[in-house]
Amino acid sequence: MINENIEFIVYDGALDMVREKVDKALSSAPVIIRKYTEHLTASAGKYIRAVSLLICAQNREGKIHVNAVSFAAAIELLHLATLVHDDVMDNAGVRRGRVTLQKKYGRKTAVICGDYLFSVALKMAASVPNKEDYIKLNMPDYISRVCLGELNQHINNGFLDLSAYQYFKIISGKTAALFEASFCAGAILSGYDAEHPDNKDSQPEAGTIAKYMRLGKYAGMIFQIQDDCMDFEKTREIAKKPVQSDYQQGVITLPLIYTFKKLLGLKDKARSNELTQEELKAAVTQSGGLAYTHMIAGRYYDKSIKIIDQLDISSDKRSKLIYVLDKAYGKS
Amino acid sequence: MINENIEFIVYDGALDMVREKVDKALSSAPVIIRKYTEHLTASAGKYIRAVSLLICAQNREGKIHVNAVSFAAAIELLHLATLVHDDVMDNAGVRRGRVTLQKKYGRKTAVICGDYLFSVALKMAASVPNKEDYIKLNMPDYISRVCLGELNQHINNGFLDLSAYQYFKIISGKTAALFEASFCAGAILSGYDAEHPDNKDSQPEAGTIAKYMRLGKYAGMIFQIQDDCMDFEKTREIAKKPVQSDYQQGVITLPLIYTFKKLLGLKDKARSNELTQEELKAAVTQSGGLAYTHMIAGRYYDKSIKIIDQLDISSDKRSKLIYVLDKAYGKS
Repeated sequence: MINENIEFIVYDGALDMVREKVDKALSSAPVIIRKYTEHLTASAGKYIRAVSLLICAQNREGKIHVNAVSFAAAIELLHLATLVHDDVMDNAGVRRGRVTLQKKYGRKTAVICGDYLFSVALKMAASVPNKEDYIKLNMPDYISRVCLGELNQHINNGFLDLSAYQYFKIISGKTAALFEASFCAGAILSGYDAEHPDNKDSQPEAGTIAKYMRLGKYAGMIFQIQDDCMDFEKTREIAKKPVQSDYQQGVITLPLIYTFKKLLGLKDKARSNELTQEELKAAVTQSGGLAYTHMIAGRYYDKSIKIIDQLDISSDKRSKLIYVLDKAYGKS
Repeated sequence: MINENIEFIVYDGALDMVREKVDKALSSAPVIIRKYTEHLTASAGKYIRAVSLLICAQNREGKIHVNAVSFAAAIELLHLATLVHDDVMDNAGVRRGRVTLQKKYGRKTAVICGDYLFSVALKMAASVPNKEDYIKLNMPDYISRVCLGELNQHINNGFLDLSAYQYFKIISGKTAALFEASFCAGAILSGYDAEHPDNKDSQPEAGTIAKYMRLGKYAGMIFQIQDDCMDFEKTREIAKKPVQSDYQQGVITLPLIYTFKKLLGLKDKARSNELTQEELKAAVTQSGGLAYTHMIAGRYYDKSIKIIDQLDISSDKRSKLIYVLDKAYGKS
């Protein structure tokens, strides 16, 4: 396949192009489904996956291959699809401050809309002229991994003996997989050299792509680990999350796993449903569970910096990658 | 991309290879999901989509490109994924004589398993060495069309004024799309010439592929139209279907649309919930609704034969294509 008409864009403004592309996909869906997809436009999230992808995609000239916009939009749509199905599974009423699709239009509609979004995401990724890049990205594999993470979490719902190992396995699927996909997609595109648009040798070697993928995985782990801490730390107003905490929904996370180990008797109390939300919050703090969990996120952060140091990139790209890590960590 | 190591298989036995491939994908899934995917192995259906694909894929020597097995397995897995989600939406208890995944393991598990099967199907299709064929097949587009058909049916659930036009639109998505995909995949592969494995010029022209696709669409229409007749005609034992009829589930089909037009007053009775299953059966027969619907299926059959006549194929392949039409029609 010959890479024809390659175009490059500058970093500033690229994210707006992704947002536009996602919004357009949602608002220009076939009439029959538009009401539902349009409902989702307003609930757009932080776009951290898209930002990551765009940063990783920057080439030596700091330019971004235009296909990065399609890949980033595709991954955000994929993420949206998983959220729509998550809400069906959790019977959730609110997401990102808006009533959920399944609450407003019912479970059936939400199941179909999620499926539809999967297909739109895949079509968008496949629409790039460089089909080899699309094949290399291997999106279906990431969908599998997200599903397995979700299933693992669902199976272990309310399982108070969940191990740290199992916890890491769950989050590496449900959250880190799509971060990895974003970094992978960016890395694939980063090799295109604006000066030599049809120089196929400019594609990064497999080793470099693997480094970006590991970095993406770690960024996802940091993001989820810190999010799981926030569930205990923040008040409802700050977290912009529904009233129900992870614990109340049966989701056991690292701060609690650590706390159950440290505070003997606490698990028995949880088992007999005697643990109040307030006691729980106090326990994860006093036991050092939150501090321990932040420390783990910090280790992933440090490991990520080591990978960034191995990349042959400009100081601007380096700063931007660290910005993503900070964003995931909650520092910025 | 160079087509390396092309292998060809004979038609006899190819279907068993597809079944094996599907079963293996289901029984060798990651441990965490295997219990659920294995539950689905035993519920394998008629494989009419796979059979269609294999027949269409036969080349001039009567041989089949080995990739047809992967594509056929992928489309059957895709079909299975839609069934799993259908059962969630309909809250169905039985499918193909077996308890459904959602009934046995719950809604959440079934939503995730359906998503997982989508990804497995896509991965399987993408696993063929000839990536161009995979891209050309455009599977995500067919998933979109199935979703839109399902949504259209769901939105019009219980809508007694459904028009014949709307009915055709629904079934051309929910059923005919995957038949079209099967015929399209077969047509793409049919051009590989066993004598000249790397002769890329042997790929069929777009016009030929379009003919196969139309044929596939018609086969799907015939299949669904006849199935909708069967819902009124057959007893539970013969149909191997659950007790609830389409009508009871709010699915309005062509025999009834015709009958509502012919027997004035019947719709009002239905509107006030006074129509019994027996009256309904009698009405669709007496009004000529069933005869009319079979006639419509017959028209699609005739149109299909005309397309087959335009194809430059062996008499063996011609017979096999007619066999598929007969199967869809219920003649064989």
